[in-house]
This record gives sequence, structure tokens and C-alpha cells, in this order.
Amino acid sequence: MADNPNSMPKFFQFRPPHVLAAPVNPADINTIQGVYPRKPAQLPAVGGNEGVAVVRQVGAKATNRFVPGQWVIPAAPMLGWWRTEMTVPADALIALDPLVPDGCPAAEALDLAQAATLTVNPTSAMRMLADYVDLDQAGMFVQNGANSGVGRAAIQIAKARGIASINVVRKRASPEADAALADELYALGASLVVTDEEAADARGMASKLRKVAGNEAEAKPQLGLNCVGGRSSVSLAKMLAHRGVLVTYGGMSKRPVTLPTGLLIFNDIEARGFWMTRWIESASSEAKHAMYAQLVAWMASRELTVEAQAYPFDTDGLAAALAALDGPYTPAKPLFVMPAAL
Amino acid sequence: MADNPNSMPKFFQFRPPHVLAAPVNPADINTIQGVYPRKPAQLPAVGGNEGVAVVRQVGAKATNRFVPGQWVIPAAPMLGWWRTEMTVPADALIALDPLVPDGCPAAEALDLAQAATLTVNPTSAMRMLADYVDLDQAGMFVQNGANSGVGRAAIQIAKARGIASINVVRKRASPEADAALADELYALGASLVVTDEEAADARGMASKLRKVAGNEAEAKPQLGLNCVGGRSSVSLAKMLAHRGVLVTYGGMSKRPVTLPTGLLIFNDIEARGFWMTRWIESASSEAKHAMYAQLVAWMASRELTVEAQAYPFDTDGLAAALAALDGPYTPAKPLFVMPAAL
Repeated sequence: MADNPNSMPKFFQFRPPHVLAAPVNPADINTIQGVYPRKPAQLPAVGGNEGVAVVRQVGAKATNRFVPGQWVIPAAPMLGWWRTEMTVPADALIALDPLVPDGCPAAEALDLAQAATLTVNPTSAMRMLADYVDLDQAGMFVQNGANSGVGRAAIQIAKARGIASINVVRKRASPEADAALADELYALGASLVVTDEEAADARGMASKLRKVAGNEAEAKPQLGLNCVGGRSSVSLAKMLAHRGVLVTYGGMSKRPVTLPTGLLIFNDIEARGFWMTRWIESASSEAKHAMYAQLVAWMASRELTVEAQAYPFDTDGLAAALAALDGPYTPAKPLFVMPAAL
Repeated sequence: MADNPNSMPKFFQFRPPHVLAAPVNPADINTIQGVYPRKPAQLPAVGGNEGVAVVRQVGAKATNRFVPGQWVIPAAPMLGWWRTEMTVPADALIALDPLVPDGCPAAEALDLAQAATLTVNPTSAMRMLADYVDLDQAGMFVQNGANSGVGRAAIQIAKARGIASINVVRKRASPEADAALADELYALGASLVVTDEEAADARGMASKLRKVAGNEAEAKPQLGLNCVGGRSSVSLAKMLAHRGVLVTYGGMSKRPVTLPTGLLIFNDIEARGFWMTRWIESASSEAKHAMYAQLVAWMASRELTVEAQAYPFDTDGLAAALAALDGPYTPAKPLFVMPAAL
């Protein structure tokens, strides 16, 4: 399953890191299906947009950037992490160890699931909470799909930053299931968890938001994160403060984003879209470094955690991981754990 | 029908200008219905958000700003122009005469309809074309409701600025009616006029846009002006260039603005709302002066025209004007012409 090292310029060559773990994300499946806007550079292609590997050997021109034994993660999308060995340009990887506080090796500070899932969900949550609205002072945001990978990262990052999170989840089959999910998100640091039915009740939400803010004054989220669309985007838009921004990063309902005209005209709300790939392709390496250093620090302190379900990297493991993605909701992300990590 | 001059502070007093003409806008009706967000400061209130008056007498503290015989228009909303005489603070009015090029009196340079309808439609069109996207170089915008007052002003302002306009109108009862309306808009300077059915055909539109741009390269509007919502907003959003902005200023379809998720995420389009009242309430007097000076210059050169249907200012005239607003489409704006103008 190794690349041919001769297919790359020598000066970029970064000899085989051994992949330790790689998650199965819904976007990986969309890429394989060909419905994702970015296509693999060549076919046949290896799947998997993120993962963690350990450096075994460094090409002559990259010795100033990587040291054998370090953990590395992708700096570029579409590298193909569902394999055991890979040879990629040095620019396409980020060494984790130098980012861990107090000189601790990444392998001691982070668990495999944290390291392997660092580049898609937590980065998306961090950027959306940072790049659209200044939430620093007594900020509050609202999100739907709050139990998704991005949603859980957003709850934890907001808590670490002192921002209140209003979290909308789909109503479950029973009140007990609703309560169990809410408890999970409260344990991560959620300020408020409501079902989509509760979120649609504007008057009830206004009262709940005032309680979260701890005062009777106007308390409205300045930012909404939307991965659902349809009626759920209407609920979010109605909660937003004057000049609030609704950022769409997914469309789980398969329905378009819907915005009441009056909210746009009279409340001056704004609808934007977020795509992590665009940020990665345009950000400076300093900006990327600063982002990953902050995320790694939160992970090392366990302020940012991820639940994963390990699968062996073989045909049965692949089938089981895919079945888990399609199956009933679970907070655990399917994660291939490679032989090198066992 | 005159205000009591004693109800205002003397130093603001601006003794009765005689109203010459005042249009009947849909927003005037919404205000009377109470569905507009701004309510009159006191009741009973006089209707009419814009108009033109001639100064007859100036209060002692406003003689440096106004001269008897000048035409004046509102600098503030909700003054109530459906009357023959008014006494308002000097700050609430703008003198037109100093804005006319070449020292020509406004009464000679402009017709009554131009002057009376200056503050709502042309200002909206001018601001939306200027404040969201930089359209200066080979720019192109698309709008629905292109035969509305704002739409017609936008076509003419775009032409004066060298910007191409793509204009979507509702399909009429016959191909002849479609062609007649298109001819009207082409006569105003439209670059392209299409029906909503044609606008919904993405491939057909791509070809038409390339013809307008005069080349085979990508030719897409950077700006969309939406006063319809629903499916029409989808058609507009699909036409927009990468990072295009869709500005909503009305909701004629009574349906919310609908945006396909992928356009937000992958094309980075943005949805905003525009409300003229917000701009008026927040802009500096320098910005307002510059805007009106430009609009008056375009009106004086007849680059910016307006069609109006005059009604006498009496009970029969009011009934007829309201009936005209509710009746079949006509480009002519209902306009009360007061006895002072006759």
C-alpha cells in the first residue's frame, strides 16, 4: 500500500511515515462518491482526508523540519490516509510534537483519536467561532447539529474561550434519549441544549437565552453555525442578534438554507458559508501553525476531547466502519487503527 | 392640514414650505397598516415618506441653509408628505437647488416626479450598487423585480456608471407583453432582460451572460439584488460569481430567501439585507449630500428618469392612487400633485 517514492521530486521527499490511525469521515465517503467539489489529483486514489502517522525516515532536504519518532498530521487535504505507509512532500505535513506545550512528545500528550481527527472537525469549529464575528466579550453562539463532530468541538472550544453555546439537536425517539444526549453535551460544556422543536418556539427560546445570559436584558447569539438547513436555519436566524451572522457548513437536511426576508432587511443579519478546504488553501503557514498550536494545547489539557470507535484496518474493519457511519447515531467517530499503532 | 408650529423648538423651526408633490409608495401603505418596523412618532400621523416642497418662509435660525423659492426634499423618513403645508426641523430637509449642476434652479432642471421620488427608490438602487461589491471594473449585476421603481433606477444608474445589468421580470400573460416590458427596460439601458422562467435555466443563462460580457470567459454577476425571494432568489444565487453577494431589499413573493447550501459553502456567496432607513439613520451628512448631488446630476441630465401618474390631492385622488397600486402593473408611480404646483 506504499506510494512509489520515485514519483516525487527528491527535494520534497519525505520517506515513509507509518500511519497510526485515520478516521472515516462523512466527507471521505462524499469524496469517493465523487460528489465533493475537490477530486483526487490522480486515480486510482487512496481515501481518507486526515490521520496521524509517525515519522520513520526523513528525506535529506526535510531534516530541518521533521525528526524520526515525531507524530505528523496533514497540512493538505486529499493525501489519502487509509493506508499504512505514505511518501508525501514535506509541505503536506505538520509535525505535532513541537506544538505540544512543555516539550512533551505528542504520543504522550494526545491520544490517537485526538491526533487523527485534528484537521477536519476542530479546525472547522475553531475557524467558524473566530473568523466571522468577534465573540470575545460575553459572546454567545447557536448551532444546530450540535452532536456532530464539529458541534462537539465547537462546544468545547467555546467553553475554553468563555463563550456560551446554544445547542440545537434533533428530537430523539424518547424523552429519555433526549435527556441522555443533552447530558452528554452538557458534560462537554454546553450552556444550553434544546431540541429542534424547542428551537422553533421563538418566545420560549428568548426566555431560555435570557437565563443563559444571566440577565433580563436582550441576550441573543451573534453567530449561528448551520449544518442542517431548511426549517432549522429559520430557527437559528430568528434567534440571532441584530447584525448576527449565520454560517453554513453543511446541509444534513438536504434542504436549502432558508432566511426570512425581514430578518435580512430589518435585523441586518448576514448569511455566509464556510469550507475548511478553502481556508487551508488560502491561509498562511503562520496562521495554520497558530491554529494547530492552540488546538493541540486544548487537546493536551483535555479541554478538547474526541470519542472514537477503533476498527482494524482490513476488509471487515472497513465494512464495519462504513456500517457505523450509516447506522444509528453514536458520538464515537469510526477510526482505523493501523498495525503500526498496535 | 398644517402642523402646529408651536409644538417644535423655535431654533429648529422651518416655517411652512408648500408641498408640491408626493408619491404613493407601497411602503407608505405598509406604514399605515402598521406592518413596517418604523412607526410614526405620534398619532394621528400624516402618511407619505417622500415628496418635494417649495420653501415659502424660513425660521430665523435656518436662514443660512434655506432660501425661499428653493425646492426641498426629506432628509428623514416619516415626515408625512401627504399634506399641503408642513413645518419641520431644518435638519429634516435637504435643499435641492444647491445640488443641481451649473447653478440651475431645481424647478427648471427636474420635473416634479423626479424630485418627489428621489429619496426612496433611486437612493436604494444607488446604495445597493455601491456598498456591497466593487462593481467599478467590468462589473455586472443581476436583479429580480427589475421593472419595480428600484429596479428601473438600478438599470439607469448602472448604465450611467458603465455597469451591465441582468434583469429578471415575471413572465407576462403573452409573449407580446413580455416583449413590450423588455423593450421598456432596454430603453432605460438594460443589458439583458429575461423572464423568471429563463432565469431558472442555469445553462441557458450562462450562455446569455457570456454574450452580454462579450467574451467566452467566465462572465458572472458579482452582485444580486433580490426583492422577490423564494425560487427567484435561488435563480439569482446560482448566477452569482464566486464570492458574489445577494442583497435582499424586499419580499414580493412572500416567501423566504432560499439559498442552496453548496453555493454558500463552495462558491462562498454571501446573503445580506438592505434597508434604506438604516442607511439614512447612520450615514453622515457628507455622505448623504454626495449621494443626492450625484442623483440630482443624473436626473438633471435625464440619465435617471421616473414615470409618474398624477392624481389630485383629494378623496377621489387618494382612492384612485390606491386602486392604481393594487391594480395591474404599470411603470407609472402614483403621484399626488398638490394645488401649490398647479
